Amino acid sequence: MITLSVPTHRREELIDITAQIRAKIREYGWNTGLLTVFCPHTTAAVTINENADPDVQSDILNTLAKLIPQRGSYAHSEGNSDAHVKSSLVGASKQVIVHSGELVLGTWQGIYFCEFDGPRHRQVYLHFRAD
Amino acid sequence: MITLSVPTHRREELIDITAQIRAKIREYGWNTGLLTVFCPHTTAAVTINENADPDVQSDILNTLAKLIPQRGSYAHSEGNSDAHVKSSLVGASKQVIVHSGELVLGTWQGIYFCEFDGPRHRQVYLHFRAD
Amino acid sequence: MITLSVPTHRREELIDITAQIRAKIREYGWNTGLLTVFCPHTTAAVTINENADPDVQSDILNTLAKLIPQRGSYAHSEGNSDAHVKSSLVGASKQVIVHSGELVLGTWQGIYFCEFDGPRHRQVYLHFRAD
Repeated sequence: MITLSVPTHRREELIDITAQIRAKIREYGWNTGLLTVFCPHTTAAVTINENADPDVQSDILNTLAKLIPQRGSYAHSEGNSDAHVKSSLVGASKQVIVHSGELVLGTWQGIYFCEFDGPRHRQVYLHFRAD
Repeated sequence: MITLSVPTHRREELIDITAQIRAKIREYGWNTGLLTVFCPHTTAAVTINENADPDVQSDILNTLAKLIPQRGSYAHSEGNSDAHVKSSLVGASKQVIVHSGELVLGTWQGIYFCEFDGPRHRQVYLHFRAD
Repeated sequence: MITLSVPTHRREELIDITAQIRAKIREYGWNTGLLTVFCPHTTAAVTINENADPDVQSDILNTLAKLIPQRGSYAHSEGNSDAHVKSSLVGASKQVIVHSGELVLGTWQGIYFCEFDGPRHRQVYLHFRAD
């Protein structure tokens, strides 16, 4: 299991980690198999979405913020219940196919770390299982 | 890695791809292991839900459309930001167990391609790893 | 494939199944690999979230109930369309890394069965693939 370091800079942020993941695939010589990208935090998540127009990333964050406002009638006293809900909706664990040393993604897909309660020093775990 | 063709017919549509997946399991003789069903598009997704009453599928689409309307104050200029958000919430990558050549699903479960910005010619990638 | 029994007690409930999963890892001697936790029901799901303050669990359920109310204008006649939508948003299939016989989770993470239309007798399927 390999760990990526993901520093975040704002309370809510989508960070493209595709290049970091590709670098690890090369570094460890992973060839063909299934890659698990796992977020070990409960106020963050991992998603796959458009890598071209950064407006898509802000639209995702803004839409989630409207649906699940930070200030609401929550029981949890740390003021980040919205981030926990978003974490469960977007999800902590994603699987991507690797073929001949390349991530198998659609043309417009990138892999994003979703920060919902930053800024923090975050981690992402990578697990690769060769076919 | 195997590719399914999934033509879609409306802007928003849930398409049952369970039979297509079962056909590939037979065709390739996949026996026991883990099957990844991956959507390489950023305005679509894959989900597992009820295969009996088609009203469930329309309720899912209509509920998502109410929560995340197509016309809203989005930054992305292509008019499909709602579809990107839905894609991240429902998710692009799903894993299903295969045992003795059979999909291990609950009685009422089917696997659905979720079109959020169609109609288009879509694809689904299947990756099987035997135990 | 191993089956967990998960009795639920209320219509909506998050049940921590981490200890049950750890017990199966020990019982079957699973060492290092990828564990799939699969919910075979269409009105329930599996998620990974905070294991410390139970208020987080009620905040998740209450926020989902506000976004997707049980009583709404749904077509499906069984009165549980909200549960089907929640099931697709939270997701039926989650993957967790196992290393040296231990679940690889963040400090605050637990694995939860999400009941959205209980109380019922539910099941969770576990599939482990060693590296």
